[in-house]
Amino acid sequence: MQIFWGSGSGPAWRVLLAAAIKKVPYDSKLLSFQKREHKTEQMLSINPRGKVPALIDGDFKLYESIAMLVYLDEKFPEPTLFGKTAEDKARTWCRVMEAESYLGPALSNVSRPLLFNLLPDKEAELKAGLAPMHEELARLEADLADHDWLVGSRVSAADLVAFPMLMALLRGANKPIAKDLGLGLLPLESRYPRLAKWKSRIEAIEGYEATYPPHWREG
Amino acid sequence: MQIFWGSGSGPAWRVLLAAAIKKVPYDSKLLSFQKREHKTEQMLSINPRGKVPALIDGDFKLYESIAMLVYLDEKFPEPTLFGKTAEDKARTWCRVMEAESYLGPALSNVSRPLLFNLLPDKEAELKAGLAPMHEELARLEADLADHDWLVGSRVSAADLVAFPMLMALLRGANKPIAKDLGLGLLPLESRYPRLAKWKSRIEAIEGYEATYPPHWREG
Repeated sequence: MQIFWGSGSGPAWRVLLAAAIKKVPYDSKLLSFQKREHKTEQMLSINPRGKVPALIDGDFKLYESIAMLVYLDEKFPEPTLFGKTAEDKARTWCRVMEAESYLGPALSNVSRPLLFNLLPDKEAELKAGLAPMHEELARLEADLADHDWLVGSRVSAADLVAFPMLMALLRGANKPIAKDLGLGLLPLESRYPRLAKWKSRIEAIEGYEATYPPHWREG
Repeated sequence: MQIFWGSGSGPAWRVLLAAAIKKVPYDSKLLSFQKREHKTEQMLSINPRGKVPALIDGDFKLYESIAMLVYLDEKFPEPTLFGKTAEDKARTWCRVMEAESYLGPALSNVSRPLLFNLLPDKEAELKAGLAPMHEELARLEADLADHDWLVGSRVSAADLVAFPMLMALLRGANKPIAKDLGLGLLPLESRYPRLAKWKSRIEAIEGYEATYPPHWREG
């Protein structure tokens, strides 16, 4: 299996984490966005939208990170990422879809202006985004009150979908330009203590280091 | 099982269609948005976000339409909505997520200004949305070249997720105000002939009539 990804792609990160958790043997294909390696003819033949992540497994081609999580979970069932019972699966999918539909937009409204240097132009929008961001983070914090992971006592697809969103937000919040914006996010350990511990749990997954965006280490 | 829905909610429509296809016996709970019946204490205890669809099955509560499709597919496996093999499931999920991430926004950028009477204020935005809308519709049309449904030879979750988006768009496009906007959408039979036939296939599903948004019949 070949997995195509790019440094800093949140969706790709989910898939790399799933592969680490399941100890899937794969050929890691790190593409350079700068060189537009995700837009080559070969890549467009795998994903016509020209985005990562994507994979090839024999003759089978696939894209869309969440579909890739499903595929990995079917091919390498243990440990399960989506649960075993109808109720567990439903609960997991509920959180996966909430992360996609609510958490992602709420966090990126704050992280994007910081990560892509859109300030001061987008400062008003960023500030308007703080309340929704905190509302979504508070939901995660509440989910973690009774168990270590977003859905129950084991890592699930919901954790993998949400984690890169939080990491991008924290990367933005740690930039010098964010210091005087009053994000109310740092230190995470005191603002969202359960979320901080959850983050550490994911960082402790065997193989995590190889999933970390390479260019994030540089700056 | 009780299924809570609202007239005109696209996400709710998906779930009603799934229940019709699987012949799930359920207690239909049509809520009035106008009376804010989706925001009652009882509804917020099922879905803290106060949205439909949602369901109760014994003690089990669930929301998020796609999670509800998963739940119905687990409880009533035939006919399958997500496929049986890893590859079928992955292909289905790819199309489900593409509908959520690309088709939905592209179509609602055009349908919303029409359905919510936001013209002429939003006319420029609507016009800017036409090219992306056609791009996404063309992808669906291409998917239907080799088979009757979006993923293979049987109706799947991908069809149910996408269908209400198209229906909302067509409802908007049929409004008198849309006539001179040059949407390039009607008649669907000549603009997107495969999509028109696909729409008819869904409308021919046994039980379809009961899923149709009641207030759409009125005006």
